[in-house]
Amino acid sequence: MPTTDGQSGRMAAVEPPEKTSQRSAFIYAAMVAGAVGLFVIIKTAGKLLSAPAQSGPVRFGRIAQAAASGELAHVLLALVIIIVFARGLGAAFKKIHQPEVVGEVIAGIALGPSLLGRLAPSASSFILPVAVAPYLNIIASVGVILYMFLVGVELDTQLLRRRTHASVAISHASIITPFLLGSVLALYLYPRYSSRDVPFTVFAMFMGVSMSVTAFPVLARILTDRGMNKTRMGTIALACAAVDDVTAWCLFALVVSIAAAKPGRVLLTVGLTAFFIFCIFKFVQPAMKWLVRKRVRDKKTTQGTMVIVFAALLLAALSTDAIGIHALFGAFLLGAVIPHDSALARDVTAKIHDLVVVLLLPAFFAFTGMRTQIGLVNGLNQWLVCGLIILVASVGKFGGSSVAARITGLSWRQSASLGILMNTRGLMELIVLNVALDLGALKPTLFTMLVLMAVVTTVATTPVLHLLKGEEELEAQGYPGRGELRKAMKDA
Amino acid sequence: MPTTDGQSGRMAAVEPPEKTSQRSAFIYAAMVAGAVGLFVIIKTAGKLLSAPAQSGPVRFGRIAQAAASGELAHVLLALVIIIVFARGLGAAFKKIHQPEVVGEVIAGIALGPSLLGRLAPSASSFILPVAVAPYLNIIASVGVILYMFLVGVELDTQLLRRRTHASVAISHASIITPFLLGSVLALYLYPRYSSRDVPFTVFAMFMGVSMSVTAFPVLARILTDRGMNKTRMGTIALACAAVDDVTAWCLFALVVSIAAAKPGRVLLTVGLTAFFIFCIFKFVQPAMKWLVRKRVRDKKTTQGTMVIVFAALLLAALSTDAIGIHALFGAFLLGAVIPHDSALARDVTAKIHDLVVVLLLPAFFAFTGMRTQIGLVNGLNQWLVCGLIILVASVGKFGGSSVAARITGLSWRQSASLGILMNTRGLMELIVLNVALDLGALKPTLFTMLVLMAVVTTVATTPVLHLLKGEEELEAQGYPGRGELRKAMKDA
Repeated sequence: MPTTDGQSGRMAAVEPPEKTSQRSAFIYAAMVAGAVGLFVIIKTAGKLLSAPAQSGPVRFGRIAQAAASGELAHVLLALVIIIVFARGLGAAFKKIHQPEVVGEVIAGIALGPSLLGRLAPSASSFILPVAVAPYLNIIASVGVILYMFLVGVELDTQLLRRRTHASVAISHASIITPFLLGSVLALYLYPRYSSRDVPFTVFAMFMGVSMSVTAFPVLARILTDRGMNKTRMGTIALACAAVDDVTAWCLFALVVSIAAAKPGRVLLTVGLTAFFIFCIFKFVQPAMKWLVRKRVRDKKTTQGTMVIVFAALLLAALSTDAIGIHALFGAFLLGAVIPHDSALARDVTAKIHDLVVVLLLPAFFAFTGMRTQIGLVNGLNQWLVCGLIILVASVGKFGGSSVAARITGLSWRQSASLGILMNTRGLMELIVLNVALDLGALKPTLFTMLVLMAVVTTVATTPVLHLLKGEEELEAQGYPGRGELRKAMKDA
Repeated sequence: MPTTDGQSGRMAAVEPPEKTSQRSAFIYAAMVAGAVGLFVIIKTAGKLLSAPAQSGPVRFGRIAQAAASGELAHVLLALVIIIVFARGLGAAFKKIHQPEVVGEVIAGIALGPSLLGRLAPSASSFILPVAVAPYLNIIASVGVILYMFLVGVELDTQLLRRRTHASVAISHASIITPFLLGSVLALYLYPRYSSRDVPFTVFAMFMGVSMSVTAFPVLARILTDRGMNKTRMGTIALACAAVDDVTAWCLFALVVSIAAAKPGRVLLTVGLTAFFIFCIFKFVQPAMKWLVRKRVRDKKTTQGTMVIVFAALLLAALSTDAIGIHALFGAFLLGAVIPHDSALARDVTAKIHDLVVVLLLPAFFAFTGMRTQIGLVNGLNQWLVCGLIILVASVGKFGGSSVAARITGLSWRQSASLGILMNTRGLMELIVLNVALDLGALKPTLFTMLVLMAVVTTVATTPVLHLLKGEEELEAQGYPGRGELRKAMKDA
């Protein structure tokens, strides 16, 4: 009877495994009956007692009431719905050769005020009530911090070191062009979609950064899926995206520190950030290398090692938060100083990746969806503005990187493929936008437009790449590349 | 220069890896300078613009403000302090042969109002401000739900099936005795430490359950550390604790359902619970067995499998919460139907164990510590009551199981060892107490006394076991057992 494993007690009374079954069943039944009888007597005696009306006021009293079961249930409900829906939509998007993250982002938006909130407001406010938002936010924040740590761990510093002339030029062109175009666009958007409490400089820099982001993980995934990660264009794209990532995050940290610092304290923030980076490389990197050697000695990553890693992670996140840039920079930087090909990196990733990506990150998609209100984009005019943002973002990122790629000697087709890959924004863009919204540098309408921009540019990548399908993919599939073909034709 | 990996951009300008370094450095510098110049122009142009005073009121507006960076920082700070402190104290306790969990619980209490809150109130309210409590609670709740799931996964159902006459008798005596003694004690405590909004029956049952809990994980750990898990007494103790665990959780679920149900709905709750258990064994267990086979086919636990496991986990937790018993029962039961020796169980445990135990559970210790206020136990009289509770708990659990063990044929020394092992309460007790406090069935003073009881009974186990060090441990160390000695003496 394998289905009764979990019940034990009562079953044991009915079917004890030994010979004395009848006698012991009787004794056991008598024991239970006696116990129940005794409890009834105690219960009856207790009825006569009376308790104090209420215990006096207690200092930490309201902690006892904090987050009652109802809120936990709502958090669990929101999590399970977003996980199932986001994963389902992600799988559907994967079927049509789209990155899964697109499906997950759209699922978050659909559950928020933009779709479900319109069609069935009561369902929306049951699934994602406003009271749950702070809790989802904390779970999402912890998830994003851990995720950025993992992105840092996976960052192949070899890619940065083995950078070629081409990849440096392309990656910087692909940051500078969209950044400048974004700032120019800010001239148009600031009087319309910002507010007086945001200085123009901060607004323009945020617009610039939000145009410059590349989603390294999504890009890497697309390349791997198409078997292009080993081709020449693939290696250049990966190197560019890695450099972009690091540069964009540095730039973003600078912008956040300027936006968050009190006037006149910008230099202090920048100085502290530099000092923090110095400390990470000077003191934390050796410590992490020691942990890597310890992992090799121990033959496994012990719980003690994990305690050190988590404590260092939280401290790094706290430090950057205290400095005035966002907690996630510290997490990313700590991850980056763990050698990505070490056994420690593999173990740490294996131990936390799935929980973070499957359980915690969906809270981020749900929370982002709650804050994205497509209803705020009103009328043809605003939709045209939204289109303009998408256009400027794509021209900046796609144009900047593909022109630079062409100049450094790639074919037009290769340059265009590289440009469209760099135009992928994915999850990274959403992280930037959420930080900007938290800081008040973006207002909800513009936030929504930029989320749509992130979705559209990410969605556009695969079909455009498919149209441009060229020698790179043929090469990946084992066909000779164009160079070899030309050589073969010459030889013939 | 390995220390500059993370900086990339600027370094690349100074030391490009190719020959054309000077020319490209010049171009690059010009590019950056041009970009900065352009941005300054844009910035100056932007100064002339003015933005709207404030964007209008937005429906989900306050979500944008929910849980600002300050709260995230406080949550991170609380987590890192409790992790470092709890782990440090845990390691110190391990040095003196105490279970680590004791150190962790005491660390939580020390950081709360009981110690730090008295010595340095400002430090305490900086580290654990009341505003952070709800977030810590949610993180702790998610941690405890995942932890109970892991306890379920590790539950060896073979232990339940291979139960002997002795283990059934002992385990039930060790539940019934403390439960009844706890109820009797309730007669004394109810008029003094409860309040009128709690019916006596609920109060008495909670007191009974809180006396009956055994910490299976702590017990198993102590046995393994002393090499006693393969000895006869060790196997009996493990089997008893497993049966106890399941029985106590069933009893606890019953009590919670009675306490939480609206009057007259108790039967409905019990019926729904039975239906839920039926569904888990009828439908979910086969699904989990299918996942186990899928794991074997796939040769690894895919992310898709983890999505199913997490979704099932959340749904099970939500179901038991909706029924009116606590979310953690669903999580435990789901874990219990995953075969504990399957590759799936190993992978799932490896993927989530460390994050749960190292990062999330400390929030539970901190939150429990915040709610434990030793200051509420006032004067000699109340301390005597606290002592009485500890005495009754120990007499019930230790006495009940050791007498039953002696009757079923173990030596006095073995029986006493088994009794003291069953008296270990550890983390499980704290989970029960927190649920009772949440439901209002316990008031803060009594909660504190019971937390102290849990600590004292857990602390007592190892030294008493050491005093009783007998043939079991000699046997574990390779010496012949007493039976063999007698036989040898007879033969001689």
